[in-house]
Amino acid sequence: MPGIGELGKRILVGRKLATARLQQPLPKRVALPVLASDSLSSVAYTTQEILVVLTLGGVSYLYLAPWVAVTVVAAMVLLVSAYRRLVHAYPHGGGDFDAAFRNLGAGAGLTTAGLVLADFVLTVAVSIAAATQVLVSGFPDLDEARLAVAGGLLLVVLVPNIRGIRQRGPFFAAPAYLFIAGIVIMLIWGFGSAAAGSAPVAESAQLAVTAELSDLTAVGLVFLFARAVAVGSVALTGARAIASGVPSFNKPRRENAATTLAMMAAVSMAMFAAVTALAVLTDLRYVADGAEQRAAIAQLAAAVFGDDSPMFGYVIVATALILLVAASTAFYGYPALASILAKHRYLPRQLYARGDQRAYAGGMLLIALAAVALIAAFDVSVTRLVPLYIVAVFGTHVLGQTGMVRHWLRILSGRLRPGEGGQAVRRLVLSGTAALFCAAVVAVVVVTEFVASVWVVFVAVPLVVGVMAVIHRYYLRVNAELAVPQDKSAGLLPSRVHAIVLVSRLHRPTLRALAYARVGRPDVLEAVTVSVNEDDTRELVDEWDRRDLPVPLKVLDSPYREITRPVIEYVRAIRRASPRDLVTVYIPEYVARHWWEQLLHNKSTIRLKGRLALTRGVVVTSVPWQLESRRSQRG
Amino acid sequence: MPGIGELGKRILVGRKLATARLQQPLPKRVALPVLASDSLSSVAYTTQEILVVLTLGGVSYLYLAPWVAVTVVAAMVLLVSAYRRLVHAYPHGGGDFDAAFRNLGAGAGLTTAGLVLADFVLTVAVSIAAATQVLVSGFPDLDEARLAVAGGLLLVVLVPNIRGIRQRGPFFAAPAYLFIAGIVIMLIWGFGSAAAGSAPVAESAQLAVTAELSDLTAVGLVFLFARAVAVGSVALTGARAIASGVPSFNKPRRENAATTLAMMAAVSMAMFAAVTALAVLTDLRYVADGAEQRAAIAQLAAAVFGDDSPMFGYVIVATALILLVAASTAFYGYPALASILAKHRYLPRQLYARGDQRAYAGGMLLIALAAVALIAAFDVSVTRLVPLYIVAVFGTHVLGQTGMVRHWLRILSGRLRPGEGGQAVRRLVLSGTAALFCAAVVAVVVVTEFVASVWVVFVAVPLVVGVMAVIHRYYLRVNAELAVPQDKSAGLLPSRVHAIVLVSRLHRPTLRALAYARVGRPDVLEAVTVSVNEDDTRELVDEWDRRDLPVPLKVLDSPYREITRPVIEYVRAIRRASPRDLVTVYIPEYVARHWWEQLLHNKSTIRLKGRLALTRGVVVTSVPWQLESRRSQRG
Repeated sequence: MPGIGELGKRILVGRKLATARLQQPLPKRVALPVLASDSLSSVAYTTQEILVVLTLGGVSYLYLAPWVAVTVVAAMVLLVSAYRRLVHAYPHGGGDFDAAFRNLGAGAGLTTAGLVLADFVLTVAVSIAAATQVLVSGFPDLDEARLAVAGGLLLVVLVPNIRGIRQRGPFFAAPAYLFIAGIVIMLIWGFGSAAAGSAPVAESAQLAVTAELSDLTAVGLVFLFARAVAVGSVALTGARAIASGVPSFNKPRRENAATTLAMMAAVSMAMFAAVTALAVLTDLRYVADGAEQRAAIAQLAAAVFGDDSPMFGYVIVATALILLVAASTAFYGYPALASILAKHRYLPRQLYARGDQRAYAGGMLLIALAAVALIAAFDVSVTRLVPLYIVAVFGTHVLGQTGMVRHWLRILSGRLRPGEGGQAVRRLVLSGTAALFCAAVVAVVVVTEFVASVWVVFVAVPLVVGVMAVIHRYYLRVNAELAVPQDKSAGLLPSRVHAIVLVSRLHRPTLRALAYARVGRPDVLEAVTVSVNEDDTRELVDEWDRRDLPVPLKVLDSPYREITRPVIEYVRAIRRASPRDLVTVYIPEYVARHWWEQLLHNKSTIRLKGRLALTRGVVVTSVPWQLESRRSQRG
Repeated sequence: MPGIGELGKRILVGRKLATARLQQPLPKRVALPVLASDSLSSVAYTTQEILVVLTLGGVSYLYLAPWVAVTVVAAMVLLVSAYRRLVHAYPHGGGDFDAAFRNLGAGAGLTTAGLVLADFVLTVAVSIAAATQVLVSGFPDLDEARLAVAGGLLLVVLVPNIRGIRQRGPFFAAPAYLFIAGIVIMLIWGFGSAAAGSAPVAESAQLAVTAELSDLTAVGLVFLFARAVAVGSVALTGARAIASGVPSFNKPRRENAATTLAMMAAVSMAMFAAVTALAVLTDLRYVADGAEQRAAIAQLAAAVFGDDSPMFGYVIVATALILLVAASTAFYGYPALASILAKHRYLPRQLYARGDQRAYAGGMLLIALAAVALIAAFDVSVTRLVPLYIVAVFGTHVLGQTGMVRHWLRILSGRLRPGEGGQAVRRLVLSGTAALFCAAVVAVVVVTEFVASVWVVFVAVPLVVGVMAVIHRYYLRVNAELAVPQDKSAGLLPSRVHAIVLVSRLHRPTLRALAYARVGRPDVLEAVTVSVNEDDTRELVDEWDRRDLPVPLKVLDSPYREITRPVIEYVRAIRRASPRDLVTVYIPEYVARHWWEQLLHNKSTIRLKGRLALTRGVVVTSVPWQLESRRSQRG
């Protein structure tokens, strides 16, 4: 078994990471782009989603786009500032979960955890859907097979993550640089052409758009703007990853790193703003349900470089790659969150130690399956998935920042050193503003998209939270049961030991088990065999007598040719006769060289051990016999 | 785990049979029809297959059909007689396998076993294909879905057999009576109508047939006849089941039972002969590859009763049912053969005891999968499957009867009482004739159908035999290794015992494991914990000291947060230091109420136990802790 197990482990799970290494700081050049990829990648679709909302009012409202972009950039500054304070206060990687759990209680903490898990699923779903859309824009032949393309991309992302690949490697850093380079060249070329007098024109510039909302009142106009900002906030979904990257750096460099990370955020935002400007310049139009439209970023690249230019292909491929890295960040983030939740006993204990990557494979698979289900349910449409994404991410932030508000309030109500009061008030205002902004974004999206899609989040998150609550209650119950009463010190010793050696045939493993049982000096020692076949049993008894073994052999009858039941019943009878005795059952076992050889050995001992484990006052001792070839290997 | 296991077992495997009950005689009325069903069911397709062969020479050769039928009936008499002698000589149910194994050696025995397994697969494949054809003849709408119908029928047969249903129940006996009644009524009605002057005419009477072989020479004619007889021998494939039924009866009634069984064979043959006569009377024609043809038996029923009559439907359904019972006999026969093969160590040992029906589920599934593969590969065609069936069954008989020839020769070369010599010579001639006849049948079928289909048997059977030989060699090797040398009596006792109690936290299961370890009075006793997380470890050590436990606690470092490796390395270090010591590892374990609760407990102990089993001189003692709710259930 271990042979194939080890092999499978090596292929799927990869090499191990030492604890020290897991916490080791990263070279900046590699760490930064990966941490920022989530945020950078949203440049690929944020502008498009803002245009979709504005176009609901007709193309005449597209003039609002720059103002929406400016508002989103301002929101980003607000959110990253608030988030840096949160991470400073709770630097152990728990982020919003820690802030909500410690300040607002277990219920809020658990809801935050559920929302973060939803965030993971939707990061995957949105990034994969966007990558698919971009690839289809570049390779129209793929249009028929969108879902298959999405599934294939997801597998490409999932498998190395299940293997636990070191995501911060150069392979994961390169796409960010490729993407930034591509977009910057596109911007320079586009605006340059415009300055030279031949402004690029998007292929959708003449698209006829029927306004869904016509003749907006002032209130309607404000709400349209709010919706556009809310949807544009998807550009901020990477804020968490950026801010949580701060503690990954060396302590002396913390300030430095934080500044650099803020710069990365600034780069993302600058690119987003410039792309939006280019979209306005090229008169790009985008409607919600146009199957024939190419992704906005692809339309821009085509308008600037032309459809057949190599730069167009470059932008397509670089965009798809950064989106895949962004999807990967979700899988990368999962083990850290799962470990924290397991530590608090909201998830199975085996997720705590992070010693075995295999433990996380199940959760990653669930995330991938949920993402695939969402991608399929919403027709591989970024536009339809984005509202769910926003609700999950900003719902998390609302809880985290509300927790921070409570945190600052608590600090303000304590004893303060001079100057601390003013600082805490400023931070309270920051967190409060961020919480209110996030709540407003969630509210707008929920109001406009609840029926169409967002209800899914409101079903899935409570479900996940419920499961975690059940797990938690179970662990609490078990812990209460296992706790050692204060008055007891080391447990009572059983009065006597009754040892049983199970015998099927008289061979060397049996003799070894007998010898080991005798060393334990039990009060009673007997060998027991189950008579399945009369001839075999008679032969065994004869040989036992002939060899004059120093242990009596007891034969149990088995009218149904079973092994397990007669043994269990015999053990129970011993326990009934003297309840304070400890019964030790010695089972000789073969260990074969290969799993397929192991198949040839009787599996009945496994079942027997399972049943014996259910019987009180019984311990089971396995006496393994390593078959020859195995032994010559291992010594 | 056992909860769901037991439930699954009850649904799939059914109730147990006591050994005494397994060997108990059956009421004749129930036993006979089931034993005979394999033979009876061939009435449904044998005539058709004979017509297929004769039609190769053109419709003018159909006049040979009655002579073929007579020859087949004569062969049946020969074969059943020879077979009854075989079963008398080897009455333990091994049949051909025993006869070949004991007289011709292991190689021939193993080949026979492989052929019998092929016989099982083909009994299923041919019966299911024939049942499908008959049902499609009655319900033409099913024609498009032949393969799906076949798969469905196979499932219907497989599931109750995996459950280990008592096949000899009335449910399995009824179809034989229904089928006999239907065919007899059809024969009386058909010949009656002819006697009354309005002979029924088959729908295919005017079918234009292009002869494949025209202007046959005398040699060609003989060969055509031989082919027809060989194919018609498929009517004899049930002989084994009938003859092997003899020992199922009470000893005083043995003669009586044997006679009754011979009568059942006679009934099958009479029905076959009469159906062939009716086919000739109605001028039925049947060609090898006519997709539009209905099964011969359905054509006869339609000709006699008319397509819309209830009796037509009755014959269709009764025929399909007896074919399903015939398919079932293969699954029913498998555990008996597997048990014999396992006894001789050609199959995994767990198939020997017949204590647990689940052990046979895997083999039955393989038989069903092989049957489905053949059905699919040969387009659900009875005509294309029959040659394989004949090769498997008659190949078995050739080996079995050749073994009997050897048997009689051995008896003749020994000391004989008066009269015994003549009897033995008569029996020698009988077995020899049967062997020659069977060999001739195999030869004819192999010559004519090798390329088209029969090669499959020549690939599959050696493969199966090879696997069994490998298993056998493995067991021989292990047995040699495990055998106790004559000079040794009870094994050497290890010099000292070094006991280790694995500790993760300090709770009641840990204390219990410590207590149990102390009772074993080891020479060295220590508690060992693996430090995965520094804080947790420090807490454990503090509490250990505070409680003043009488056992020292050792902390093993784990830079990779693993549990298994540090423990294994520690154990190996102990063994290296004092190789004659026995190391006993005590592992506290939780036993949860439900399998989903068990998921919440650390699985690392399973892996650890697997690895410890590979280490020499180590025994593992599991100290189970039954969690509360479980304990309140079981006491």
